[in-house]
Order: sequence, then C-alpha cells, then structure tokens
Amino acid sequence: MNNYLFNKALIIGVGLIGSSLARGLKNKKISKFVYGFDINEKTKKTCLELNIVDTFLNNLILEEKFDIIIICSPLSSYKKILSDINSSIKSPCIITDVGSTKVSVVKDFNDFAKNDFLEFVPGHPIAGLEKSGPEYGFEDIFKNRYCILIDGYQKKQGYISVKKMWEQLGMIVEVMNSEHHDRVLAMTSHIPQLIAYSIVATSTELEESIKEEVIKYSAAGFRDFTRLAGSDPTMWRDVYLLNKDAVLEMLNRFSEDLSILQKAIINEDGKKLEKIFSATREIRKQIENYGQAGTFDPREKKS
Amino acid sequence: MNNYLFNKALIIGVGLIGSSLARGLKNKKISKFVYGFDINEKTKKTCLELNIVDTFLNNLILEEKFDIIIICSPLSSYKKILSDINSSIKSPCIITDVGSTKVSVVKDFNDFAKNDFLEFVPGHPIAGLEKSGPEYGFEDIFKNRYCILIDGYQKKQGYISVKKMWEQLGMIVEVMNSEHHDRVLAMTSHIPQLIAYSIVATSTELEESIKEEVIKYSAAGFRDFTRLAGSDPTMWRDVYLLNKDAVLEMLNRFSEDLSILQKAIINEDGKKLEKIFSATREIRKQIENYGQAGTFDPREKKS
Repeated sequence: MNNYLFNKALIIGVGLIGSSLARGLKNKKISKFVYGFDINEKTKKTCLELNIVDTFLNNLILEEKFDIIIICSPLSSYKKILSDINSSIKSPCIITDVGSTKVSVVKDFNDFAKNDFLEFVPGHPIAGLEKSGPEYGFEDIFKNRYCILIDGYQKKQGYISVKKMWEQLGMIVEVMNSEHHDRVLAMTSHIPQLIAYSIVATSTELEESIKEEVIKYSAAGFRDFTRLAGSDPTMWRDVYLLNKDAVLEMLNRFSEDLSILQKAIINEDGKKLEKIFSATREIRKQIENYGQAGTFDPREKKS
Repeated sequence: MNNYLFNKALIIGVGLIGSSLARGLKNKKISKFVYGFDINEKTKKTCLELNIVDTFLNNLILEEKFDIIIICSPLSSYKKILSDINSSIKSPCIITDVGSTKVSVVKDFNDFAKNDFLEFVPGHPIAGLEKSGPEYGFEDIFKNRYCILIDGYQKKQGYISVKKMWEQLGMIVEVMNSEHHDRVLAMTSHIPQLIAYSIVATSTELEESIKEEVIKYSAAGFRDFTRLAGSDPTMWRDVYLLNKDAVLEMLNRFSEDLSILQKAIINEDGKKLEKIFSATREIRKQIENYGQAGTFDPREKKS
C-alpha cells in the first residue's frame, strides 16, 4: 500500500531549508523519490555524501514527471528557474516555494510561468537558523512553527497537497494575502534582521582594543543580535531588494522611535524611559502566551 | 572546621541577581549567614517563603558586624544606601556591587562612603535574564560567565575575597578600568537593549490587525528582541541615565550604520548589502569561537 503524498518531488536549492525539507519528505515518507537541483557544487557534494536526496538533476529542462517542485533558492533566482521549468514541463505539476517575500514571488510566477501544467501555490514556512548549507538542515526545523500560504489559491487541487505536506512536517498552516504577508514579515523578520546586521556592523568599526572585548562580553545582549547576523547574506540581500517598500516603511517608524529614546536619554528624562520600557514588557508577555518565546531550535532541549 | 569565606553577608536588593547570589552563598557554603535588605515588601515575602535569606534587616543602620555587603539594587539607589551604611558601620567590611555601569558607581562611593571601615571593590557580574524578581533567581545564573572587577582595587584585602566569591559561583573574573568598562558595556549590552526596547515599542504602535500577527509570527526574528525587552524597566532606566555619554556615542555610530543600510536599500544596491552582511557573519563566528554563543540560560539544556 502506498501512502506517499507524492511520487516524485524536486527541491530546487538544497541549502538549510531545502535539505531540511528533503530529509522530512524522505523520513516521513511524504514523497517516494526526492530529486534535487543546486548550482553550487559543494552543496551537491554534501547532499550526496549525506544521502539527503536520491538524485541530482544537472539542469531544469525537465524530462521526468514531477508531482511537486519546491523552490528553496534565493529570491533573485526565481525568474530564471520559472522560465526554465515553464519551457520544459510536459505534465501537470504543483509548484510552491519557501521565499520570505510573497508579492515579488507572485509577480515572478505570473510573468515567467504561463504554462497551464504548472499549478502555483506560493508559501512561506517561517523556519530557519542562522546557519546555511545542507549540513545544518534537520527535519524538525519545521516542527510547531507557522507556515503561511497565500490567499486566493485555496481552490486549487495543489493547495491541499502543499498544506498536507507542511502539516505532515509539523507546521501550523495559516492563510494571508501577499501584501499583508510582506508587511507583517517586514516587522517580524526583515527589520529585526536589518538592525542586527547594522549593530554588528557598528561593532566591526570599533577600535581593535574594544572590538575584542565586545566579542568576549557579547553574552550581555549583543550576542542575540549576532545570532541573526550569522544568516545567509545572499538570501537576505534579495529580501531587502524585493520587499523594499514595506521594509523602508517599518524602518522609518523604528528610526522615529529610536530618536524618541535618544532624546529622553539626552534630556535625562527617566520617567519617559521607564514608561516606554514598561510598555514593551507587555509585548513580551503576549509572545510568551502564544508559546512562541522559545529559542525554536528544536535541538536545544528544554528542561 | 570552617571553610566559609564569610561569616555574615548582607545582600541589598534581593531581586533576580541578589536572590541568585543569596542562593549561591548559602548552597555553596560561601557565607555562613546570608542577610537581606529590600524596600519591596513583595520581594521580602517571596524571599522568606522560598527561604532564600536567613534574616531581613528593616533598615541599613547596621548594628551587626558584616564581612561583606553586596549591593544588587538599581543604580539610582546607591547614594542613599552608601550614606546610610557610611553613617552606621562600626567594623571593617568589604562592600561590592553588581551594577551595570561603573564610572557612576565609583563616583557615588567616593562621594558618599568616606568611612575607613568600608573597603570598596566595584564589580559587575555579567549575568542576567529577561525576568526580574527573586522567584526567577537560581545560583547557576553565574556559571561560566564573566565578572568584571574594576582596576585599581587589586591590592586591597577585600579584592581577593570578592574575586574568590565570584569564582566559587563559577564566574571567570577579569579586570578592567571603569571608563573602559562603561564603553564596552554600552556596546555589548546597553545599546542592544535600547534597540530592543525601541523595536518592540515600534510594534506597539502598529494597527491592531498587524500587531496581533507581529506577536504571532514573532519567531521569525522579532522574538529575539522581545526577550531583551522583557527586562526590568527601573534597572535599565538607571543604566541610560548613568552611562549617558558612552551610550549616546555608540548610538550615534549605530544610527550612521543603519542609514548606510537604508540608503543601500533605497538605491537597490545589492552588492553593498551583500558585502555588509558577509562581514557581520565573521563576528558571529568569533563569538562562537569564544564559547559565548549559547543562550546562556543554564536551564536550557543543550543536547
């Protein structure tokens, strides 16, 4: 008896997320065969050594029938990938992705994938680590985390399969429209990441004597920022280029709030500082109530 | 045989750090008796219920002989505490503290504690949690973390005892001058904390519909900031008022770096973004090499 959701799945970009997905599709028997495609030779070599995928394709001129294609490569690679698939696909196939912006992805699909065989379901599993590369992937990276699928695609046959796939990997699937997704993620992810990059960049410009100590005593708070700043540079470059408007909007709001704090310090306005610091504490409590306060690296076991 | 380092220790301010210290002094047999003083009735009640201290003093007009006094209360409370102790102390006593700024603390001591019985050793155990209150304290909060003692006090008898105390609690003791300490901590702790407060404040001003989702999907990066923003508001207010110059200097540098990133996004300068993001990744690697990359809440066990 065959309980597989898919016979053949193709993962394009087998880095941290792609390899985690490949592991999950195999280990949880979601897809009978897991194919991979990656332009990075080192990534391919690691995946083959670790037995993460069954077969690597050498190009995206598809000769075989795939039930699902999952794009897990940087956002700037979508146009070329979609053109290649669009020109070669010869049988019905679901296509989904894991990209951190969704307005640009929907546009890319509409512009570059006009083949009726392709059934598109844009998605974003909100999972990750500050590491990149297939050697760091693990199937539980998705467990108990949210996956956003984009509104307007629910009636498609492929939607059900994509939803099932993420649920079988342990995710909680939610629906959101693409513009709203990009604003929410600007605030929850893209701005924190940008600020983390910025403060770590500041530390790199300090005099050598103090820089060494900033690293040594990083546990006092700075470390939390460097964790984010350890993430994949290419992936993040693409996020800021493709979610420019929402990011700049949220960045302006942040800069204004930071100026308010700066002025309060200049004016030695203790009351104002205490008031702001007390209000933010409430937000933390709400996050704890949502059960989202952990480190979310499932390998860090809680006592 | 008596192996205690101290016969009687007095902890002023028995919150997160003070109560953790009290637990450590008792459990590791560092002080035979542990006295406490706190102006907060709820804190006193909790400490007595949890049997954290032996006795609470009702005021700081000291009748008994203490070997060591450790100030663990907010920085704004030091002046009054030091005056009270200064006017009542009648036998030699080491006095140390755990405050996050050191220039202001040294000045407060020199201004308000002129009694020859008092031997001052300013210190800063770099340990903490985003929680406050004695119920969250635990003795291992200090384990494998750094404690900075201020340069210039090494020849004092009390210095050896304070160093031993922190070492017996598992800390690595380092020496630094007070101005340098305040600049390093501005960068490693005070600025990250201020930015965390600022971005969480930004989220509180968002429209209700998006605010709810920012909290729900916080695991994408935002959560790391809220962890810091859950900290004690009074303690942090005092830090910014008393380390104003170093904080404003580092904040200006940070704002400049953030502007550079903002301009690169506006100009869609992918090369610049990628270059900055790659450089910051190196800093993260150095922190990992220092063994300081963990969450540092010892209750979160690693596999």
